[in-house]
Amino acid sequence: MSYDRLSADNAAVVFVDHQTGLSNGVQDQSLPEYMTAVAALAKLTKAFNLPAIITTSAADGPNGPVLPIITQTLPDAPIIHRPGEINAWGNPAFVEAIEKTGRKKLIVAGVSTEVCVTFVALSAIKAGYDVYAVIDASGTWNKLVQEVALARMVQAGVVPMTWVAVAAELQADWRNVTGETLAQIMGLHLPFYGNLLGSFMAAKG
Amino acid sequence: MSYDRLSADNAAVVFVDHQTGLSNGVQDQSLPEYMTAVAALAKLTKAFNLPAIITTSAADGPNGPVLPIITQTLPDAPIIHRPGEINAWGNPAFVEAIEKTGRKKLIVAGVSTEVCVTFVALSAIKAGYDVYAVIDASGTWNKLVQEVALARMVQAGVVPMTWVAVAAELQADWRNVTGETLAQIMGLHLPFYGNLLGSFMAAKG
Amino acid sequence: MSYDRLSADNAAVVFVDHQTGLSNGVQDQSLPEYMTAVAALAKLTKAFNLPAIITTSAADGPNGPVLPIITQTLPDAPIIHRPGEINAWGNPAFVEAIEKTGRKKLIVAGVSTEVCVTFVALSAIKAGYDVYAVIDASGTWNKLVQEVALARMVQAGVVPMTWVAVAAELQADWRNVTGETLAQIMGLHLPFYGNLLGSFMAAKG
Amino acid sequence: MSYDRLSADNAAVVFVDHQTGLSNGVQDQSLPEYMTAVAALAKLTKAFNLPAIITTSAADGPNGPVLPIITQTLPDAPIIHRPGEINAWGNPAFVEAIEKTGRKKLIVAGVSTEVCVTFVALSAIKAGYDVYAVIDASGTWNKLVQEVALARMVQAGVVPMTWVAVAAELQADWRNVTGETLAQIMGLHLPFYGNLLGSFMAAKG
Amino acid sequence: MSYDRLSADNAAVVFVDHQTGLSNGVQDQSLPEYMTAVAALAKLTKAFNLPAIITTSAADGPNGPVLPIITQTLPDAPIIHRPGEINAWGNPAFVEAIEKTGRKKLIVAGVSTEVCVTFVALSAIKAGYDVYAVIDASGTWNKLVQEVALARMVQAGVVPMTWVAVAAELQADWRNVTGETLAQIMGLHLPFYGNLLGSFMAAKG
Amino acid sequence: MSYDRLSADNAAVVFVDHQTGLSNGVQDQSLPEYMTAVAALAKLTKAFNLPAIITTSAADGPNGPVLPIITQTLPDAPIIHRPGEINAWGNPAFVEAIEKTGRKKLIVAGVSTEVCVTFVALSAIKAGYDVYAVIDASGTWNKLVQEVALARMVQAGVVPMTWVAVAAELQADWRNVTGETLAQIMGLHLPFYGNLLGSFMAAKG
Amino acid sequence: MSYDRLSADNAAVVFVDHQTGLSNGVQDQSLPEYMTAVAALAKLTKAFNLPAIITTSAADGPNGPVLPIITQTLPDAPIIHRPGEINAWGNPAFVEAIEKTGRKKLIVAGVSTEVCVTFVALSAIKAGYDVYAVIDASGTWNKLVQEVALARMVQAGVVPMTWVAVAAELQADWRNVTGETLAQIMGLHLPFYGNLLGSFMAAKG
Amino acid sequence: MSYDRLSADNAAVVFVDHQTGLSNGVQDQSLPEYMTAVAALAKLTKAFNLPAIITTSAADGPNGPVLPIITQTLPDAPIIHRPGEINAWGNPAFVEAIEKTGRKKLIVAGVSTEVCVTFVALSAIKAGYDVYAVIDASGTWNKLVQEVALARMVQAGVVPMTWVAVAAELQADWRNVTGETLAQIMGLHLPFYGNLLGSFMAAKG
Repeated sequence: MSYDRLSADNAAVVFVDHQTGLSNGVQDQSLPEYMTAVAALAKLTKAFNLPAIITTSAADGPNGPVLPIITQTLPDAPIIHRPGEINAWGNPAFVEAIEKTGRKKLIVAGVSTEVCVTFVALSAIKAGYDVYAVIDASGTWNKLVQEVALARMVQAGVVPMTWVAVAAELQADWRNVTGETLAQIMGLHLPFYGNLLGSFMAAKG
Repeated sequence: MSYDRLSADNAAVVFVDHQTGLSNGVQDQSLPEYMTAVAALAKLTKAFNLPAIITTSAADGPNGPVLPIITQTLPDAPIIHRPGEINAWGNPAFVEAIEKTGRKKLIVAGVSTEVCVTFVALSAIKAGYDVYAVIDASGTWNKLVQEVALARMVQAGVVPMTWVAVAAELQADWRNVTGETLAQIMGLHLPFYGNLLGSFMAAKG
Repeated sequence: MSYDRLSADNAAVVFVDHQTGLSNGVQDQSLPEYMTAVAALAKLTKAFNLPAIITTSAADGPNGPVLPIITQTLPDAPIIHRPGEINAWGNPAFVEAIEKTGRKKLIVAGVSTEVCVTFVALSAIKAGYDVYAVIDASGTWNKLVQEVALARMVQAGVVPMTWVAVAAELQADWRNVTGETLAQIMGLHLPFYGNLLGSFMAAKG
Repeated sequence: MSYDRLSADNAAVVFVDHQTGLSNGVQDQSLPEYMTAVAALAKLTKAFNLPAIITTSAADGPNGPVLPIITQTLPDAPIIHRPGEINAWGNPAFVEAIEKTGRKKLIVAGVSTEVCVTFVALSAIKAGYDVYAVIDASGTWNKLVQEVALARMVQAGVVPMTWVAVAAELQADWRNVTGETLAQIMGLHLPFYGNLLGSFMAAKG
Repeated sequence: MSYDRLSADNAAVVFVDHQTGLSNGVQDQSLPEYMTAVAALAKLTKAFNLPAIITTSAADGPNGPVLPIITQTLPDAPIIHRPGEINAWGNPAFVEAIEKTGRKKLIVAGVSTEVCVTFVALSAIKAGYDVYAVIDASGTWNKLVQEVALARMVQAGVVPMTWVAVAAELQADWRNVTGETLAQIMGLHLPFYGNLLGSFMAAKG
Repeated sequence: MSYDRLSADNAAVVFVDHQTGLSNGVQDQSLPEYMTAVAALAKLTKAFNLPAIITTSAADGPNGPVLPIITQTLPDAPIIHRPGEINAWGNPAFVEAIEKTGRKKLIVAGVSTEVCVTFVALSAIKAGYDVYAVIDASGTWNKLVQEVALARMVQAGVVPMTWVAVAAELQADWRNVTGETLAQIMGLHLPFYGNLLGSFMAAKG
Repeated sequence: MSYDRLSADNAAVVFVDHQTGLSNGVQDQSLPEYMTAVAALAKLTKAFNLPAIITTSAADGPNGPVLPIITQTLPDAPIIHRPGEINAWGNPAFVEAIEKTGRKKLIVAGVSTEVCVTFVALSAIKAGYDVYAVIDASGTWNKLVQEVALARMVQAGVVPMTWVAVAAELQADWRNVTGETLAQIMGLHLPFYGNLLGSFMAAKG
Repeated sequence: MSYDRLSADNAAVVFVDHQTGLSNGVQDQSLPEYMTAVAALAKLTKAFNLPAIITTSAADGPNGPVLPIITQTLPDAPIIHRPGEINAWGNPAFVEAIEKTGRKKLIVAGVSTEVCVTFVALSAIKAGYDVYAVIDASGTWNKLVQEVALARMVQAGVVPMTWVAVAAELQADWRNVTGETLAQIMGLHLPFYGNLLGSFMAAKG
C-alpha cells in the first residue's frame, strides 16, 4: 500500500448512524471519550471544508436522531435516511451522494463499528475507494467487538485511523490557514492539548 | 479480498463443541457474555433458516452434551458426534454434512476458539470455502489464547466476525421478512437494544 | 456488626429505578452481566416470596419504564412512581410501602448505584433498618463510580452483597422447599452452574 | 455516621489546584472523563448557588492557571493563591474564606487526589467539618494512587463521592427550581443522559 | 484490633467446598493462580501440622468431589459432607469438628468467596473466633463478586489474607524447623521464588 | 498460507532461553500461567516423542540455568549453550542441531518473546522452515512488548500458537496412542480440564 | 483518627527487604513504577534528613542485596540483617534501632507488601506507633495480594500512603528549605512533573 | 518479508517530537515506562554509534523542548526544528539529514505514535526505506490510539519493535565490544535485568 495522504481536496467524511439511541450502546470506550471524538470529527470536517454525508438507520424509531453536535456543526451536509438498508452502500441515494462529492478517499465513522462502519468500508473498498475508518469516532458494544471489527477491516485493506491522525494528516502543516481553528478543536477535544496551550500562554504572559 | 456478503442463501452455520463441560472453561470473556452470544447465534440460524451442522467431541464424556439452547433452537440440525477427531474436518460424516448444505460460506463458532474453531476454519479455507469465525459466540481459556487464535485465523484468511455482524449482514435490510424476529433476538441478547426498544415504545405510548 | 442472616421471614426487596432508559447507562459491568443479575434478583424475590417494592423515577419520561423482567416476575409488587424525589425515601408512599412489609432488613438494588441505591440505603440505615446493597444487580456509569459508591455505603454500615450471596443466605439449606426453584434460577443466571448441572445429569445418565 | 444530606443551604465547594499544568498529570482516569467531571462540578456549584472557594498552588509557575472552565463558570468565587503551602488549610486566607461561607459541609475536589484533596479533607475533618471528596472531579498520577487516597480518606471519615451523586443529593427533587438546569448539565457531562433525552424528545415528537 | 499473630499452635484451617465442579466457576483470578494457591494452602497446613477441617456441599452431585490435591495432602483431615446446609456453620458436625481442634483462630478458604467463605467467616466471628479469610486460595464468579465479598468480610472484622502471608506468619522465623519445607512449597507455588532459588544455587555453584 | 498441520512426524520443538533468571522478568502474563504453559510444552514434546533442542544464553551468568521442568522432562534433548549469540540461529551448533532433526516445522517458545523467540523465528522462516511460535509458553517484560512481538512475527509469516493448540494439532485424534498421556497433561496444566475429568469420573462412579 | 501530619521532626523511614532478588517478584505494578517509587522514597528520606532503618532478610541468600539506590542514597542508615525473622519486629536489634530514632511515626515500605510491610506495620501499631505504609514504594506478587494487604492494614489502623503524599506532607510548604531538592526528586521520579518544569522554563526563556 | 537484521552499520535512529509538553499527553502506557524506554533508546543510539536525527514540532511553543535525556545523550545529533510540517518527511532539511546518514534502515520513535511516528514511517516506506517503529519508546493519548496506529503501520509494512528488541538485534552477540555498555543500559532501564545482575554478583561474591 503506497502512502497517499488525506487532504482537504481528496477526501470526504461519512457519518454512519451516529444516533442518540445507538450511541448509548457504545461500551468499547468510555462514553465521554466516544462523544468527544465524534464531535471533533464533525468540527474537523467543517474546518477543512470537507464534503460530508450523514446517514441514519430508522431515525424516527428507537435508534433516535443524529447526535445534535453533528447536525449543528454540519448543517449543510446531506442526510440520507435509510428506511431499512443496514449497509448504507445498499441505498442508492447514499451512493449517489458519495459519488457526487467526487472524492475517492472516504473517512468513515459510525455506530456500530462492526456493522455500520465495516459494511460501508468493505463496500467502498470493493467500489474502488480508499477507505479510512476512524475507530475512536466510532463505537460498539464492547472491546472484543471493536477488536474483531478492526481486524476484519485491516484484513480487507481499510486504513485504521483515529481522529487526531485524521486531523494531522489533513492539516499537513500548522502554518496552513486552518491551523488556528484546528488548535482550538484539539484544545477542546484532546484536553491534554488544551491544558498545554493554557499553561504555555500563562507562562509567556 | 473482495466483499461478498453473507446471505441466507449462501451460508451455513457450524457449531463446534459448544458443550456444557467445555463451556465452563471459557474465560476469554465473561460467561454471561459468551452464553448470550451462543444463544443468539443459534436463534439467528433458525431465523434465517440457514443450514446448521452441530458437532461434538466425546459428548458422552467429560466434555458434556451440547448446550441445550442450541439443540432446542435447532432440533433438526444434524449432530455429528466425533468419536475422537479433534479437527472436525477429519471426520468424513462432518465434511459430508457440510457438503450436503451446498453452501460455500461457513459461519463457524465453538469451544475452544484456538482448537475446535481454528482447525475447522483452516481446513475449510484449504478446501475452498469462505470462512467466517464468530469470536464472541466462541470461547477459550483466557484472553491471550483468544488474541493468538484471532491472529492465526486472520493470517490464514478467515474473516473475523461477531454475532451482531453476522445478523446484520444476513438481514441486509430491516424491511426483509426476518426483521421482526431479528429485532426480538437482538432485544434479548444485546440487552442495550432491548432497553432501547422498551424506552421507545413507552415514549410513543 | 453481629451476623444475623437474611431469611424469607425477615427481609424485603427494594428495586429502585431499574428502568429501561437508565439501564442503558450502566457501564460498571457489562450489560449482559447486569441484566442477568437483575433478572435473578427478581426471580429470587418471587421464589422466596419476599415482599417487594418497586419504585421509579419519572417513568413516563426518558428514564423509561421498569425493566419488564421485574414487573413480569413480580406482578403484585407495588410500584411507587416518584414524581420527582431522587431519594425514594423522600417519598411518603414509598416509606409507607416499606413499613407495611413489617420487615427490618432491606435488600436494595437499582440504578444508579451511587444515587438511587446509596441514598435509599443511607436513609434506611438512619431509619433503623439493616440494609444489604446488591452491587451486581445494581449499575452505574463506570467502574470508578461503583467503587466510590461501595466505599460510601460500607463506611455507613450498609452490608455489600451480590445476588448469589443473597440467594444462598435466603436458601440456607438446599433441602428447603425452594431448593429446586433456586437451582433453576442459578442454572440460568449463573451460567457456569447451569452447565455444571447439565454435565452432571448427562454423566449420571 | 448519620446520613445528613448535602443541600444548597449547608454546603460549600472547594476547588483545590485544578490547574492546567497539574491536570496533565492526571492518569487515574482518562483525561476526557476527568475534565468533564470537573466542568460538571463547577456548573453544579453555580446552578445551586453554592459558595465556592478556589485555591491554587504556585499558579504563576509550572502548575499553571486554574482551568478556565472553573473561573469562567464561577467568576465571583474567591481565588486563594497559595505562595507555598501544599495543604491549603495551612493558608490563613483560605481557612478564612471557608469560614466566611458559614457552611459546615465541604465538597472538595482537586489535583492531586492524595495530596491536595486529602490534606484539605483531613484538616477539615479535624476542624469539625463534614467533608465530601469528589473522586471523579479529582485526579492523580495513576489508579493505584487513587485507590490509596480513597482508602486513606475513608479511614479518616471523609465521605467519598462522585459528581453525579453530589448533583443528585443537592437537587433532592427534580421538581425543585434547579431541575431544568441540572438536566442540561447532566445531558452534557454524563453523555448517556443527554442521548437519552434526545431520543425521548424525538420519540415524543 | 490488636495484632496477635497466627501460629502453628493457635490456628486451624478450614477448606470449604473446594470441589472440582465449583472450582470451574472461579473467574475472579485465573484458574492456574487459584489452583496453585489452594494447593499451597493445603501443603502449608500439613507442613505446620495444623488441624484441618474439610467440608463439602453435595459432593456426590454436580459440585463434585474435593480437589484431590487437598485430600491427598491432608489424608487425615476430617471431611464433613453437608447434605444441604449452605453455611457450614449450620452443620453441627462441622462446628463440633472446629471446636474439637481447640483452636480459636480459623484460617478459612473456599469456593465461593462470597457464600461459602463469607458465611462461615461471619458465623465464626459471631461465635467468638478470630477469622482469617485467604482470598487467593478462595475463588468466585468474577472480580466484582470478590471485591464485594472482601468488603463485607472486612466490615465484619474478618482479617483478609493471602496464602503467602499465612505461610510467613506461621513460619515466623526461617530458622524454625519447617523452614526447608516451606521454601520448597514456596518454590513451587510462588514460581518467582523457585526461580530465584534456582538461580542462586547455580550462581553459588 | 495453506493449512498443513503439525504432527509427531514433521515437527521439532525449540526451547530458547527458558532460564530461571530470565523467567523472573516475565510480566506479560502471570507467572503461574507462564510456568504451567512451559511445563506443558515440555511434557507434550515428550509425549509425542518430538525432537527437541534446548538452547541457553550465558547460563552460567545471571540468566541462570534452564528451568528444571524442561531438563527433567527432556533429559536427552541436546542443550546448546550459546556463549554470546543473542539470536540462536547465529550459533552453528544450534542450526546443526535443528537440521539434524530433519524436521521442517519448528515449534518455538522462549524468553523473551520479542528477542529470543522472534529472532529465531524470523531466521528460521528465512531458512525455509515453517515456524510456530507458542506465545503462552513464552514470556516477556510486559503486555505491550508481547503485542508488538506477536504483530512482528505474524507480519513475517510466523504462525502464532498457544500450547493447547499445539497439543491438539499433534494429537489429531483422541484415540491415538498418546491420548491418555495428553489427557493427564491437560488435566494438570489446563486445570479446568482436570476439574472436568474429576467431576465426570465421580459422577460416573 | 485525628490528622497529625508527618514532619521531618516526627517521622522515621523503614525500608524492609527491598532486595534485588525479592524485587524481581514484584508484579502488582510495573517494575519501572515500583523502582522509581523506591528510589524516590530513599531520596526523600535523605532530603528531609529523616532517620532511616534498613533491614534485610537473608541478604546473602537468594533474596539478594539491598537495592543499590537505597544504600547509595542513605550510606549512613543502619542495616539490620535479619538471620531468619520474617517480621522484622521480631528482631531485637531492629526494634532497638527504631526506638533509637525517638520517632513515633514510622513510614514503612518494602517487599512484599502483605508480609514484610504488613507484619512490621501491625507490630508497630501494637507497640504504639503511628504507621504509614507506602504502597507504591512497596511491591508484591500480583494486584490481588496488594488489594488484600491494603485492606488488612487499613482495617488495623495503618495509614495508607504513596510516595508523593509522603513528600508533600513532609515538605508542607514549598518555600521551606528542602523545596528545591524536592522539586528535583519529583522532576525525576514523577516524570510528568519534570516535563512540566522543562516546558515552563523553556516558555519563560 | 525477508529477515535482514538491524546492525550498527545499516541503521539510523529518528527521534520525532519527543518534547516535554507532548510527552505529558502520553497515556497509552505509564509515564515511567515511556520515559525509561525513550532514555534507553537514546543511550542505545550512542552505544552503537548510530547516526541519529532529532526533529521537533514548534519547540518554542507549547510542545516544549526536546526531552533533555535525548539531547544530553546525543549532543552531536542534528536537530531539525520544523516550523510547521506535521509529517517530518515534508521538511526538506529533515529528509536531507536522513539521506546524509546513508542508512536504508530507519528506527523511528516519537510522540504521538499515530501522527509523528506513523507519518514519518509511511513516508519513509514510500521512499524505499525499511522502517522499524519502536512502540514503547513512542507514546500517544490512550491505548486505543496505540492499537490503531500499530495496525496501520503493520498494514503498511512497517516493522513493529520495542527498545529491547532493537538493542538485542543491534548487539547480535554479547561478546561484541558494546556488550558491557549495553548490559549497563539494560540494567538501568529494564530494571528486572539490573536486579538480576545485582543478585548474581552478590551470589558470586
